[in-house]
Amino acid sequence: MASEFDLIDRYFKRAAPPGMLGVGDDCALFGVPPGMQVATSTDLLIEGRHFFPDVDPRALGHKSLAVNVSDLAAMGARPIGCLLGLALPEVREPWLAAFAEGFHAMAHAAGCPLIGGDTTGNPGVLAISVTVFGAVRPDAALCRSGALPGDDIWVSGALGDADIAYRLLSGQMPPDDALLAHTRAALDWPQPRFALGQALAGVARSAIDISDGLLQDLGHILKASGVGARLYLDDLPVSAALAGVPADRVRHAVLAGGDAYELCFTAPADRADAIRVIGAESGVAVTRIGAIEAGTGLTVLDADGAPLRDLPRGFDHFRSS
Amino acid sequence: MASEFDLIDRYFKRAAPPGMLGVGDDCALFGVPPGMQVATSTDLLIEGRHFFPDVDPRALGHKSLAVNVSDLAAMGARPIGCLLGLALPEVREPWLAAFAEGFHAMAHAAGCPLIGGDTTGNPGVLAISVTVFGAVRPDAALCRSGALPGDDIWVSGALGDADIAYRLLSGQMPPDDALLAHTRAALDWPQPRFALGQALAGVARSAIDISDGLLQDLGHILKASGVGARLYLDDLPVSAALAGVPADRVRHAVLAGGDAYELCFTAPADRADAIRVIGAESGVAVTRIGAIEAGTGLTVLDADGAPLRDLPRGFDHFRSS
Repeated sequence: MASEFDLIDRYFKRAAPPGMLGVGDDCALFGVPPGMQVATSTDLLIEGRHFFPDVDPRALGHKSLAVNVSDLAAMGARPIGCLLGLALPEVREPWLAAFAEGFHAMAHAAGCPLIGGDTTGNPGVLAISVTVFGAVRPDAALCRSGALPGDDIWVSGALGDADIAYRLLSGQMPPDDALLAHTRAALDWPQPRFALGQALAGVARSAIDISDGLLQDLGHILKASGVGARLYLDDLPVSAALAGVPADRVRHAVLAGGDAYELCFTAPADRADAIRVIGAESGVAVTRIGAIEAGTGLTVLDADGAPLRDLPRGFDHFRSS
Repeated sequence: MASEFDLIDRYFKRAAPPGMLGVGDDCALFGVPPGMQVATSTDLLIEGRHFFPDVDPRALGHKSLAVNVSDLAAMGARPIGCLLGLALPEVREPWLAAFAEGFHAMAHAAGCPLIGGDTTGNPGVLAISVTVFGAVRPDAALCRSGALPGDDIWVSGALGDADIAYRLLSGQMPPDDALLAHTRAALDWPQPRFALGQALAGVARSAIDISDGLLQDLGHILKASGVGARLYLDDLPVSAALAGVPADRVRHAVLAGGDAYELCFTAPADRADAIRVIGAESGVAVTRIGAIEAGTGLTVLDADGAPLRDLPRGFDHFRSS
C-alpha cells in the first residue's frame, strides 16, 4: 500500500498560488485583501448517504468541491482556496486519479486551489471533508438574515433536474433512459454560481444556495430575517428537460428537490434591472419568483392566485430517503 | 430522530465572537489583522482508526480539536476559530452533549471558538472533521522548510506517555493499571502547545508537532529543509511516569511514539536563552535534544557518542497498527 504521503504528493500536491503556502506543512497559509473578511464553510460527505457508491469518481471529485464553492457563492465571496480530507476504505489508484482530476478541474474553474488536507485509511465507508475559503467585504456579504419586506425573491438557473435524476437512479420513478440522460448532469456535475454570487455581493440583501430544496432553504432566509414570503408557482424556472414529466412530480421537484445548487436570493425591488444585468454578465439565468412580506409564513400561489395546500417539505435526497 | 438543525442549535451553536459570523449561515466569516495571513489545517478522524470506539466522548471532543490546534501551534499561529463536521452513525444525545462539552472547553482554552460546521447521519462509523484557522505574520510562520545547519533542535514537554498508554489499551503490553493511570491522560487529553508556538513565531526557524513520532516528524523538517540532524539519546525528555518501563520500550516510545502533540522545533544556537525564557513564560518545558547538520540523514547518538542502529520508524498508532 502506498503511504499517505506518497498519495498526497502524487494526486493532491500542486504548486500553491503566489503568496500562499500549500500542501506539505502543518498549516496552509493565505492572505485576504485589506478590508475583507474570510468566508469559510465545510461539508462532510459520506458514501451511501450523500452519494451512490458507484458514482463516477471524477464527478464525485467535482461535486465534493462544487457544493462547498456554492456556499461561498451564497455568501457573495470570491474563492481563495480549499482543504480536502479523504478517508479511503481501500486505495484504488485509478479511482483516486479520477477523483483528483474532477476535484482539481472544479478548483481551477472556480479559482479555488487545493492548499492542504488530510488523507487516511478507513475501515468503513468512504468519507470526504472539504473546507473552502473565500474573501468578502463584511458589509457586502449575503447573509441569510438580510431579507426585508418588499424584497423581490430570485432564483438562478432552472430547478428540478437533479431531483428527477435522483429518483430515476434510486428507483423511485420508472426507468427512463432519455430522461436520465437529460437530467443526470445536474445531479452529478452541479455548477456552483460563484461568478453570480460575487456579483450579487452588495446588491442582493440575502442569499442561500439550494441544497435541501427551495422551500426549505428559502425558509432558512425567512427564519433568519424574521419575515414571510409568497412565491408564484408559474414563475418558477423549470428545467426544459422535464417537459414530459407529470405535473405533480415536476412541482415537487422544483419546490422541494435537493442538490440543485442554484442561488435563491432577495433584493430591493428597485434593483431588478441591475440583477438582470448581473445575471446576463455572469452567464446565468435569473428569475424573479416572488416577494418577501412582513410577518411569517411562506405561501405559494397558483396561476389563479390561490395558495397551494400541502406544500412539500424540503429535504436532502441523501439524508431523508 | 432530532433533525440536523435541532442538534446543531442545541450542542454547537454558540454566540460568535465580536466581528465574526458564526454557525447558521452558508459560511462563517472572520477577519485577520492587517499584515497577517490565515493559517489553516484540517484533520479527518475515523472511529477505529484514530480513536477507540469506547473512548470517553468528552476526551474525544477535546482531542478532535486539540490535534488541530496543535497544527496551528506548530506554525506559530494564534488561534481564531474552527469548523466541525460530524457524521454520526446514531444520535446518542448524552454522547453528543459530552463530546460538545469537551470540544467547547478546548476551544475556550485555546481561544479557538466553533464558528461553523456540518452534521449528518452516517450508516457506517463515526467520522469527525475539524478545520482550524489562526493568524500569523508570514515572515514569522514556523514552516518545516526553515531549518538551517547549526540550528539547535528542541522539543517541548516529555515524550513517551501516549505511546505506552496506547500499547496498554490495545493489549500490546501486559495490563498495568498503575502505569495506565499515569499515562492515559497524555493519549486522551493531549495539550496542544499554542502559547509556546505563538511565542516561538519569529524566534524559531522551523517547527512541527509530533503526531507520528519524533523521528518521522523531525524527518519531515529535514526533508523540507534539505538538511540532516543528530540527536542525543540521553537528552530526550522522557516522561517520569515511565520510570519502571523496560528501557527498549521507553526508547521506542520516545523516538517513534505517535500522538504526543509536543512541538519539535529548530532555532539558531544563539537563541537558546531566549527559547528557555519563552518556555518558562509559556509554562512548558523545552529541551535541546540535538542539532541540524548539513547534508542528509538523521543520527541518534547514545551516551558514548555511538550512533544507534536500527532506528525505529515513526508511525501513527491508529494508522499502521
